[in-house]
Amino acid sequence: MSKKKVALTGDRPTGKLHLGHYVGSLASRVKIQGDHRQFVMIADVQALTDNAQEPQKVRENILEVTLDYLAVGIDPHLSTIFIQSLVPPIAELTIYYLNLVTWNRLKHNPTVKLEIQQKGFGEEVPAGFMIYPISQVADITAFKADVVPVGDDQIPMIEQAVEVVRKFNRLYKTDVLVEPKPLLATVARLPGIDGKAKMGKSLGNAIFLADSPDEVTKKVKGMYTDPGHLKVEDPGKVEGNPVFIYLDAFAKDKAKVDEMKAHYQRGGLGDSVVKKYLIEVLLAFLEPIRKKREELAKDPKHVMDILFHGTEVANAAAHATLLEVRRAMGIDYF
Amino acid sequence: MSKKKVALTGDRPTGKLHLGHYVGSLASRVKIQGDHRQFVMIADVQALTDNAQEPQKVRENILEVTLDYLAVGIDPHLSTIFIQSLVPPIAELTIYYLNLVTWNRLKHNPTVKLEIQQKGFGEEVPAGFMIYPISQVADITAFKADVVPVGDDQIPMIEQAVEVVRKFNRLYKTDVLVEPKPLLATVARLPGIDGKAKMGKSLGNAIFLADSPDEVTKKVKGMYTDPGHLKVEDPGKVEGNPVFIYLDAFAKDKAKVDEMKAHYQRGGLGDSVVKKYLIEVLLAFLEPIRKKREELAKDPKHVMDILFHGTEVANAAAHATLLEVRRAMGIDYF
Repeated sequence: MSKKKVALTGDRPTGKLHLGHYVGSLASRVKIQGDHRQFVMIADVQALTDNAQEPQKVRENILEVTLDYLAVGIDPHLSTIFIQSLVPPIAELTIYYLNLVTWNRLKHNPTVKLEIQQKGFGEEVPAGFMIYPISQVADITAFKADVVPVGDDQIPMIEQAVEVVRKFNRLYKTDVLVEPKPLLATVARLPGIDGKAKMGKSLGNAIFLADSPDEVTKKVKGMYTDPGHLKVEDPGKVEGNPVFIYLDAFAKDKAKVDEMKAHYQRGGLGDSVVKKYLIEVLLAFLEPIRKKREELAKDPKHVMDILFHGTEVANAAAHATLLEVRRAMGIDYF
Repeated sequence: MSKKKVALTGDRPTGKLHLGHYVGSLASRVKIQGDHRQFVMIADVQALTDNAQEPQKVRENILEVTLDYLAVGIDPHLSTIFIQSLVPPIAELTIYYLNLVTWNRLKHNPTVKLEIQQKGFGEEVPAGFMIYPISQVADITAFKADVVPVGDDQIPMIEQAVEVVRKFNRLYKTDVLVEPKPLLATVARLPGIDGKAKMGKSLGNAIFLADSPDEVTKKVKGMYTDPGHLKVEDPGKVEGNPVFIYLDAFAKDKAKVDEMKAHYQRGGLGDSVVKKYLIEVLLAFLEPIRKKREELAKDPKHVMDILFHGTEVANAAAHATLLEVRRAMGIDYF
């Protein structure tokens, strides 16, 4: 009997989760939780690296994100959902790992460089933000994760983790740390309703899992399509058209979608008809999620209990790793 | 009845302590422990920032440094002696504080800049070393230290701590963090036996508290004096002459030292005579310390028990602060 592989995933609690999260990672978490030992982390410490000014945003979204998790089917009996800041060994491992990485290496992390640019930090980037890749190494290794489901923009983070793991194991002549592998999302990234490449919480272009039918309807009606498709009779483009990308991701009747695509391409199918169908598809997909979410939201204490228990389980696992790490370093004094 | 002031001090466990440590800080710790709530930290985490390659050095010196502490009279009933790495709230506070400091600010810490130069790190400086001032802010604030006895080269560290405390208290509209004040050593720094300005563990110019009478005798006989004092009849210099600086620091018979100084200055007093007296003075000073140290070293388990208990006390204090910090930030979820 082979041991289950360990998976670590997580989200920064800075807003409710949306369809992009579902397609990019929540769906695969639900899928793999049966045959993996899965840890799902609410990354409040990481969220604070660029939200130190507004911790209340982080606080409020702990419950919201957990509601999203449970509503889409992440099962607390199969997955350990926990709060990062309440697992002290992660902070302790971060501090040890920082000694194994040069300042120079941190400066040249491509993901961080890009994010610094996007966030307009310049020289005023918080030190905590610069070192967050090492905090992620601690997240991953604390649970001895074998696989980390990520988007391709996060590959440099996994590379950094592998580097630290190899350096630690070589330096302290041990094998306590496990090299993680990225598990790339198989579905293409969902664009925003404005046609931008990425759906983002803070970009105002997201359909949230918790959105009401009215909100979904309104958002789909305002969706970006093919800007060259001016009149119903005109032939329209399907590639890169968000409405069809969403249909590909969520419609169950693939034949119907194919038929609509062909009709749209040869002309004669109006955007409003396609959007009407997408609204139908999304409402059908979101209804059970929203209902379950509303039900769970009535008893926040129960949801917090799930987090409390998951955090205890996560702490025990991370603490065991920390003890092994300290033993490997020879700093197990008692 | 006013509350006792809290003092935090400590040492990196990278070698036994020497006469320079005694004059510069151990003596004042023994003096203030009666009317301060004193925490004495064995800074193993900080030692690892530039000793990640040789943790066994850190491990071995935990016991050695504690023996030195107890031998000079740091009383575990009056002072809490503890091991930094076994107080997780310090790592957790470090992670939160890193979000309040810019990368740019860390780069320009004058003490760190100088040390990077001295250690020849260049661009390959470990990230853990660059952020150690913030780890020190966590050490200081975890115990709400009012005073931190330091040398003047450490003033920038206290300034960094004050900056973080003010920023945290202002940002989170609180007063949970306490601004520390430096307590400057009143005695001038003890030079090395080679005449260099600073006695250092790693410089090979130190007389250790644990040195045997033979070692002390040999070291004093080889001490640097006034290089212009070639013949006994020659007038010699007293200022900057390590032999007289040591006599000033350790001889109880001040009249005799003054008399010798005058004789040395007018000529006719040989170095060997002065050194013979210094040997006598140092052996008398060191004998009770060495005896107590030898006695304690026979029962290392007892010494480790003192550390274990001190670490428990320190943990309780630091954990209470961490809870207050989390409450102030609004991330006390349960």
